[in-house]
Amino acid sequence: MNVKAYGAHAADKPLEPLSIERRAPGPRDVQVDIAYCGVCHSDLHTVRSEWGGTLYPCVPGHEIVGRVTAVGAEVSRFAVGDTVGVGCLVGSCQQCASCAEGLEQYCENGFVGTYNGPTADAPGHTLGGYAQRIVVDEGFVLTIRHPHDQLAAVAPLLCAGITTYSPLRHWQVGPGKTVGIVGIGGLGHMGVKIARAMGAQVVAFTTSEAKRQDALALGAHEVVISRDTDAMRAQAGRFDLILDTVAASHSLDAFSTLLKRDGTLVLVGVPEHPHPSPAVAPLIFKRRAIAGSLIGGIAETQEMLDFCAEHGIVADIELIAVQKIDEAYDRMVRSDVKYRFVIDNATLAA
Amino acid sequence: MNVKAYGAHAADKPLEPLSIERRAPGPRDVQVDIAYCGVCHSDLHTVRSEWGGTLYPCVPGHEIVGRVTAVGAEVSRFAVGDTVGVGCLVGSCQQCASCAEGLEQYCENGFVGTYNGPTADAPGHTLGGYAQRIVVDEGFVLTIRHPHDQLAAVAPLLCAGITTYSPLRHWQVGPGKTVGIVGIGGLGHMGVKIARAMGAQVVAFTTSEAKRQDALALGAHEVVISRDTDAMRAQAGRFDLILDTVAASHSLDAFSTLLKRDGTLVLVGVPEHPHPSPAVAPLIFKRRAIAGSLIGGIAETQEMLDFCAEHGIVADIELIAVQKIDEAYDRMVRSDVKYRFVIDNATLAA
Repeated sequence: MNVKAYGAHAADKPLEPLSIERRAPGPRDVQVDIAYCGVCHSDLHTVRSEWGGTLYPCVPGHEIVGRVTAVGAEVSRFAVGDTVGVGCLVGSCQQCASCAEGLEQYCENGFVGTYNGPTADAPGHTLGGYAQRIVVDEGFVLTIRHPHDQLAAVAPLLCAGITTYSPLRHWQVGPGKTVGIVGIGGLGHMGVKIARAMGAQVVAFTTSEAKRQDALALGAHEVVISRDTDAMRAQAGRFDLILDTVAASHSLDAFSTLLKRDGTLVLVGVPEHPHPSPAVAPLIFKRRAIAGSLIGGIAETQEMLDFCAEHGIVADIELIAVQKIDEAYDRMVRSDVKYRFVIDNATLAA
Repeated sequence: MNVKAYGAHAADKPLEPLSIERRAPGPRDVQVDIAYCGVCHSDLHTVRSEWGGTLYPCVPGHEIVGRVTAVGAEVSRFAVGDTVGVGCLVGSCQQCASCAEGLEQYCENGFVGTYNGPTADAPGHTLGGYAQRIVVDEGFVLTIRHPHDQLAAVAPLLCAGITTYSPLRHWQVGPGKTVGIVGIGGLGHMGVKIARAMGAQVVAFTTSEAKRQDALALGAHEVVISRDTDAMRAQAGRFDLILDTVAASHSLDAFSTLLKRDGTLVLVGVPEHPHPSPAVAPLIFKRRAIAGSLIGGIAETQEMLDFCAEHGIVADIELIAVQKIDEAYDRMVRSDVKYRFVIDNATLAA
């Protein structure tokens, strides 16, 4: 079956209306009519092939919320009419140690991304959520328990939410812990909300004095302007965990030195140009670590969605028509969005 | 009381015979007549003020083994005649959270190093083990249970041994774990022996084909020449922990990519020139970490000494007269030692 979508035919071409093919649901498949799709930086990097390796036509989008409109005969956990989500993954080997632990994002045979991943379906690579419909193995479909009037703002939880929730959970953030969130953007604003709901003392780091009030409103207990050397020095040795959501090249020493003994600085963004080489002495003298973290597994994504539903957490979003996607990309590059664009997929029919 | 020692009056002066003062043992002090003192790279860096901040006269040495010749009235754990060790630390605040956990090396108020540390004793900074005698608070004295004919080779355990033992223990090396040891020198050769005794699968990484047989003889199950790109590629994703003992600037990516998911690359040396900035993607895509580790606490140092005594582990050493120290430093800089020089402190009397 053919559905309307939005995508690009080449790295240097703007996104435009496309007609794409979706497979008929197989026995284990769930067919989802997409209501909303969040706009992630990865969408832009991929559609413009800034990381290389993009296959065209490229239809981005991996923050998907919609309604089930058909299910295969063997599907047991979903029924027509259910409100569901699809995130960054639509497949993995299901055989390796990581998959066995529910950590499909670290699949040792390579997970299948929601777009630009390998598939037997036409055109040979997966096509994402800037489309009217998607068909996904039920093992990669999430249940959404938020109220229906919040669904657009739920969409970004599927990538920005889980990317921050997973490291906060893995490094055991909770009451009695002090957590720093670096960067108040699409990821960081979710990190602040989630860390606060987990019961931690939350300190937001931003380069911009203008974001101070916003960060407090999002739930930060304190805000530190990272360009203020004295203010930064006053935070030395204070943090159990610092979640650094800034992908642009920057000094990691400014944050590693703020960790307690045995604290961890977690990076979730790959910089286009390398960060300055981090100093080794601050790691050695307090047994600190610099680590990375990638989205989250399916079970943990469901846990995150349920946690957010229970705590009334959604993203702060700006809803757009799909025809405004290029403008949204330009504004996203300038960090001119509070804090996530979400496409109203009904506008694909226009 | 005055004792003979060896040290330097300035960064650009050779080491020479000195007469230094040791305090009379206070109520909690143990007086140790030093039999042997290992020669650590830190000795050389400090005596030449390569890290800055060296106070003169400087008497290095923090791998000390000797015999107790006097104890203060309140000393309960040591008696005259005991064979004991003193390592890198002779004091800490005993008040902070790290001290309370027995992690004096991470003392939040700064530990007192065995040399170049603050003290009320003349000349106002601590003087180390290139001396006939040292007086130390009993809380920083270790019991040596090795046979007496091994004492010279025990000395390097007090720094090289604990510096490798502590991260191997902290990151839970043991049966079923695969561990890499990078660099087969003073630290690395201890790392290989200890990791093997802990029951891990041990892979030694060296730039030098000439060290292959030596590394196997030390206990490595396998040896990989780190300049062999194909051999390195074959190790990808295999290691739970890699202990990197090389302080010279080098690619950390070559080793971070060899870690399993959730694996850690531990650095124990501060490079003079920064390492090339480590790539972030290998950290993110497998939740790997790069961490640091500093020597070990007193309780863990005792545990290490007992572990090594039980497993018959000592350092491979070259025993020297103290008058040969400058020559030993020159050879150490060229890595021309298998694997640690140890001073026979009886030669101080000459």
